[in-house]
Amino acid sequence: MQTLPGFRDFLPEDCAARNYIFTRWREVARRYGFVEWDGPPLEFTELYKKKSGDEIVHQLFRFQDQKRRDVSMRPELTPSLARVVTSLPHEYKRPLKWFSIGQFFRYEKQQRGRLREHYQLNCDIIGEQSAAADAELVALCVDLLRAFGFSESDFLVRVSNRKAWSDFLASRQIEAHRVADFLDIIDKFERTEVSVVEDRLAAFGLTAQDVITFAQSPFAESRQLAQFLAEIQARNLEEFVLIDPMIVRGLAYYTGFVFEVFDRLKRFRAIAGGGRYDQLISRISDNRIEMPALGFAMGDVVLTEFIKESPRANRRLKSWIKRAQVIDAFVIIAEESKRFHALRFVERLRQSKWRVDFSTGPARVKNQFERAEYVSARYAIIIGAEWPLITIKDLKRREQTQLESTESIRDLKRKLQLWQRNLKSQRARGS
Amino acid sequence: MQTLPGFRDFLPEDCAARNYIFTRWREVARRYGFVEWDGPPLEFTELYKKKSGDEIVHQLFRFQDQKRRDVSMRPELTPSLARVVTSLPHEYKRPLKWFSIGQFFRYEKQQRGRLREHYQLNCDIIGEQSAAADAELVALCVDLLRAFGFSESDFLVRVSNRKAWSDFLASRQIEAHRVADFLDIIDKFERTEVSVVEDRLAAFGLTAQDVITFAQSPFAESRQLAQFLAEIQARNLEEFVLIDPMIVRGLAYYTGFVFEVFDRLKRFRAIAGGGRYDQLISRISDNRIEMPALGFAMGDVVLTEFIKESPRANRRLKSWIKRAQVIDAFVIIAEESKRFHALRFVERLRQSKWRVDFSTGPARVKNQFERAEYVSARYAIIIGAEWPLITIKDLKRREQTQLESTESIRDLKRKLQLWQRNLKSQRARGS
Repeated sequence: MQTLPGFRDFLPEDCAARNYIFTRWREVARRYGFVEWDGPPLEFTELYKKKSGDEIVHQLFRFQDQKRRDVSMRPELTPSLARVVTSLPHEYKRPLKWFSIGQFFRYEKQQRGRLREHYQLNCDIIGEQSAAADAELVALCVDLLRAFGFSESDFLVRVSNRKAWSDFLASRQIEAHRVADFLDIIDKFERTEVSVVEDRLAAFGLTAQDVITFAQSPFAESRQLAQFLAEIQARNLEEFVLIDPMIVRGLAYYTGFVFEVFDRLKRFRAIAGGGRYDQLISRISDNRIEMPALGFAMGDVVLTEFIKESPRANRRLKSWIKRAQVIDAFVIIAEESKRFHALRFVERLRQSKWRVDFSTGPARVKNQFERAEYVSARYAIIIGAEWPLITIKDLKRREQTQLESTESIRDLKRKLQLWQRNLKSQRARGS
Repeated sequence: MQTLPGFRDFLPEDCAARNYIFTRWREVARRYGFVEWDGPPLEFTELYKKKSGDEIVHQLFRFQDQKRRDVSMRPELTPSLARVVTSLPHEYKRPLKWFSIGQFFRYEKQQRGRLREHYQLNCDIIGEQSAAADAELVALCVDLLRAFGFSESDFLVRVSNRKAWSDFLASRQIEAHRVADFLDIIDKFERTEVSVVEDRLAAFGLTAQDVITFAQSPFAESRQLAQFLAEIQARNLEEFVLIDPMIVRGLAYYTGFVFEVFDRLKRFRAIAGGGRYDQLISRISDNRIEMPALGFAMGDVVLTEFIKESPRANRRLKSWIKRAQVIDAFVIIAEESKRFHALRFVERLRQSKWRVDFSTGPARVKNQFERAEYVSARYAIIIGAEWPLITIKDLKRREQTQLESTESIRDLKRKLQLWQRNLKSQRARGS
């Protein structure tokens, strides 16, 4: 028996890496005043149809449930968010700053950085029109990556505004309903053969050179983004940001400001991406509530690759995992006749919030010590013939001491601390 | 647009409650030396077929994927665990003590305490035969509930061993292959009409009275469980445990020791349940690895109901949520001309790990103060005409002070602490 292709098991090491990423995501999102929410992993397919563009609908894990409802495993969070926001109780005051961490599913060809499931952080601001909100979102995205140890020399936020392209098309007398088709060409521009691009552009009476010339013009670069850039400069983040009109994002629902984050060496797919979707919520709500909104998502698969290929980020990951996995003590039962005393002692230590393990079955003392090392215990506590006297061994420093188990756990911990301090100063004195 | 029946949205308050439960689960499981792992939410249906009993297979969210694979959303974790354990790299040393927190899916009639999705904590010990492992698992289960504020007067672990029933049937010359059918009667005994029970037992040549008499005999109560009980007593946990042979659990794969946890007032479904499944791993592996194993699961739906109906547990939940949602400061921009200074100050505060929010769009000072209260900010920091002098208002104590924003954030925080200490001692002196 195997996992399905494109699905992962998380063995303890992988799961710790996942927890590290979730912890950092949560920490930084909260630092920006975002609050956490979540939607269900299964929704009516209707919610995703027409809302997210054809590409996604063809990649759904979609089926009929036992009551013949057309349902799909979620490919992304934004449609659920739009659904939730339109029916929110009145006590929720806009702007909402919401984030969510969850798993998403797409049936697509597996390739590097793309599985059929992945975890995503989604951060959204609902009910805020200003370019200041665009900057707040990009600043959050930058700080999320900084929290993993990346700097402006590692990654770049490529920012653009779709409206620059609609203005461009309008100036060429191209009808508004053709904008979406045109943006699809721009979205795929960098990864499509020139001849195909030229063919598709010809239908608009344009050439690849027209597109490139406009993209490099100051008009496309700055007019729509002036306030955004001022906010980014005020925050001292200009080193992280590049205006790049060729970024338009694949999803149909974006309405203006869009951005994607890439590693500077372009080794990976986009690490994160998002933008404004000012019309999506009104399209999903029955009562046509108009609500400006913007958001981005950052996936765990590309991020993990990025971390593992960056020595500094990878060191942070490893040391976090190490700290997360350490347990405080492994209790070694040197005399089976003392097992019940040992059990009660374990219980007392755990009540004091220590992480404690021991061998449930009888085992040789040597094997118990091996186990203590294997589970990364800081101390081995040996309970044997001398009970209630216990021996405590510092497994890193290879030193040991004896204490009275009859004392309160608080006093024991205090004495342990004292002993540690003495050991340290002895070492410092070179003895 | 709505959620599917039996599926939940987690608005911020619900999501915080979910995080509270996950945090406690994680904390206590780690205290017992368990390490976290996870499996995928979608697996080959084959994995669940025959492994988990018919009841589950009929309740699957099951479908064919785009390559016509027969797949199902996971109804429980144990089959994935068995799959993973049989193909584990050699560096993993048994016993494994593993836990996992994830979402599970069953298509069944919705009722109180049962939705079509729920979150579960799963804790398993693999490769340990002794009754000491049974006791370790029950002790963990007890401490998990104590961490939410419950005591022995709130809940009870009902423990039993299926072998007592096989022995009983053997003593009545009933063939071993009929044990599963018989256990199904016992499993449903308490919630089935007497006449139906009598009919089903008659096929075994037994009466309800036979069953009750045996269940109350010391033989059923203690023979198989003597070592387990000794371990529980050594840990001082006997007040939490009741031997009750009528607990046999519904799942087909249990082989001996089983338990379920109930609230003392029996208002809810089982809060947790589990047992030994010594043959499951060999049944799933191709190479027939024999591996003793045991585990339990605790669901979030019943647990949340239980917490909300217990004043003490509910107080803990509320106060945790409150602490989790607090932000450190809301920066109030009293003069729009100072916005860029304010932005950079926000950035500096956030770099120092503070949780900070502000109004992205221009807003009246009064509205910004309202927003500061709404997002539960501890301090309002007012940036206005006096910049670089800033006013800091403690929103709980309703006191304010002024500081120089040009100082380092560390110095600012230190001065803030001093000011807080003075306020406190002033109040203590009754001024």
